[in-house]
Amino acid sequence: MLSKSQAAFIKSLHHKKYRKEHGYFLAEGIKTVTEFAASDYCVDTIFCTRKILPKLAKLSQKIKLVEVSDEELSRISVLQNPQGVLALIKLPEEKTFPATWYKNRFTLALDDVQDPGNLGTIIRTADWFGFTNIVCSEGCVEAHNPKVVQATMGSLARVAVQYASLETVLQQAGLPVYGAGLDGETLYDVSFGHEGFLVLGNEGNGLSPGVQKQISKLITIPRYGTAESLNVAVAAAICCAEIRRRAV
Amino acid sequence: MLSKSQAAFIKSLHHKKYRKEHGYFLAEGIKTVTEFAASDYCVDTIFCTRKILPKLAKLSQKIKLVEVSDEELSRISVLQNPQGVLALIKLPEEKTFPATWYKNRFTLALDDVQDPGNLGTIIRTADWFGFTNIVCSEGCVEAHNPKVVQATMGSLARVAVQYASLETVLQQAGLPVYGAGLDGETLYDVSFGHEGFLVLGNEGNGLSPGVQKQISKLITIPRYGTAESLNVAVAAAICCAEIRRRAV
Repeated sequence: MLSKSQAAFIKSLHHKKYRKEHGYFLAEGIKTVTEFAASDYCVDTIFCTRKILPKLAKLSQKIKLVEVSDEELSRISVLQNPQGVLALIKLPEEKTFPATWYKNRFTLALDDVQDPGNLGTIIRTADWFGFTNIVCSEGCVEAHNPKVVQATMGSLARVAVQYASLETVLQQAGLPVYGAGLDGETLYDVSFGHEGFLVLGNEGNGLSPGVQKQISKLITIPRYGTAESLNVAVAAAICCAEIRRRAV
Repeated sequence: MLSKSQAAFIKSLHHKKYRKEHGYFLAEGIKTVTEFAASDYCVDTIFCTRKILPKLAKLSQKIKLVEVSDEELSRISVLQNPQGVLALIKLPEEKTFPATWYKNRFTLALDDVQDPGNLGTIIRTADWFGFTNIVCSEGCVEAHNPKVVQATMGSLARVAVQYASLETVLQQAGLPVYGAGLDGETLYDVSFGHEGFLVLGNEGNGLSPGVQKQISKLITIPRYGTAESLNVAVAAAICCAEIRRRAV
């Protein structure tokens, strides 16, 4: 059973302004919710239908479970087809890392990536390839936007996403910065060392001028056909796969 | 100026049923519309705002241009933020290829890919990597769905998409069939020849049992982290990139 005020509170979290104000965000679907529950995130309450309830029995020891009707769930869900479970989760504290943190690893850096589906897919891909940290420019879409959370398929529970001035982070880290773009060195010819940043730019405009100045090597995925560009999440994935292939 | 009946006709094309019935589909954005105009597709009419009109001047010699107001455009557009131009385009005839057509090339095959953004991104990726043909199972989302068209960024104008029983096509072609999945041979160890099919499965369920029977080699993208799976468009892209890298 869901009170009117609970429903209103949860619906407010569909919007960025209220997520920031209240310090909570939403996640849906049994897989995603289970992964958040098993992570460092603090899951406050899980709302689920009677059908899903038995599957979450284990979680009831540490998390408050509230049974709701299908109709109640569809009222608070972000999805067109709600998946029977919605979790109310505390927004994590904003992460900042010292410049030394970036040594001896590869870090994904995103320059004004705007589309929630793209950011979510990149987080999921980073998780697959073991990139545990993503630095987003302040112009990127918010990682706890419901559409981003959905597209990560639970990977947001494991990948740390920080927001910062990308220019400053890249400058202060003093590591190689590989930027994906057109007219760079062929991906397969680039010598990736054992550390650095892989930077992907905005969907329409690519890398911003400030970030471009920090790029030590522009890399390009070879084209064999006629498309003008690749989707940013696709470009990120091909570069991540190649960096890992080389390291073996 | 847009008549009421024109607006109603165009809005009906937001829906699959009426696209089939009337034999037209919609494309939006100057890049996408220009690419369809330059292709084998038959663009019937272009509706655009006064601001965009001069940019389409060249097309007016062969295509009917209709000036509309911002408000009129937003009434017929599929997009939340219309881009100033919408084209009414004839649906192409359904493509079928003889079994011999698939020889000496790689063909992408999609088994019930449901998400329009995923199909659109796969078409764009195929265009980048020079895969000129995609075979979709009959359960795949329709390629002329506006969200698919949008995500292809014009590549649908160049990549031929056919719908068929995937099982039958794969069986009759008599070529190697590489299926992307978990627990297969590592992508980087697979010997790709110079021809065959690369099959990607449904977002939630992977490859269907009937299609699985036609797979000659299951291939897996190595995982270095903890995500359970990759997005299907990302998996397709990494496999396409690798097939092309090997061929050089």
